[in-house]
Amino acid sequence: MPSQEHMKQALQTYVDAFNAGDAAAVCDLYADDAVIEDPVGKPPISGRAAIEEFYANAIAGGAKLSLDGPVRGSYGNRAAMAFTIDVPGMRIRAIDVMTFNADGKIVRMDAHWGPEDIES
Amino acid sequence: MPSQEHMKQALQTYVDAFNAGDAAAVCDLYADDAVIEDPVGKPPISGRAAIEEFYANAIAGGAKLSLDGPVRGSYGNRAAMAFTIDVPGMRIRAIDVMTFNADGKIVRMDAHWGPEDIES
Repeated sequence: MPSQEHMKQALQTYVDAFNAGDAAAVCDLYADDAVIEDPVGKPPISGRAAIEEFYANAIAGGAKLSLDGPVRGSYGNRAAMAFTIDVPGMRIRAIDVMTFNADGKIVRMDAHWGPEDIES
Repeated sequence: MPSQEHMKQALQTYVDAFNAGDAAAVCDLYADDAVIEDPVGKPPISGRAAIEEFYANAIAGGAKLSLDGPVRGSYGNRAAMAFTIDVPGMRIRAIDVMTFNADGKIVRMDAHWGPEDIES
């Protein structure tokens, strides 16, 4: 199981790399067979190619992330963060939960935000 | 599937009822066969009797909850909230994810907080 420190650092790296426009560094946090459900309730995407496309598009759209508070860990292989996504003309409030594998890579990301969490 | 409004109101009721010391009102948000994993990584508890004991103990311990930001919904049957738990002599930062059934009751609660999310 990855350490709490490792998981929390991974989530901080996720935010920092995303904001730096470094899609490769974000994708590198993921295992090759990772699954992303963003938002929860929509069809998930899986696999490296789909994940790279997802982040390339998100970054190209001008989104910037800011943490709403400290990243949370657990007594297991999950960490979570509440954050705000500012896209030109739109603000989304989300809570992401990341599940890690034994190698410290993210195998699953669940993004909790719904139609009422979008302000335009 | 419950509405976004229903799920968000349930999480707000959870916080308000907890802070009012009303364990019965908190437990009433749950389905009879609900499962609570609090914190994630520790053995879950399930069923009405165990859940009632869990909240009775938490409220008796003097814990008070404050939301860190707006409750998040999803496009599915989940909602999430980041909050702070103040217990006499201790502060815990947590993110709870609640999964609802078709009747609008919580069937699963996952509480993300770890040893490093406790300040004493």
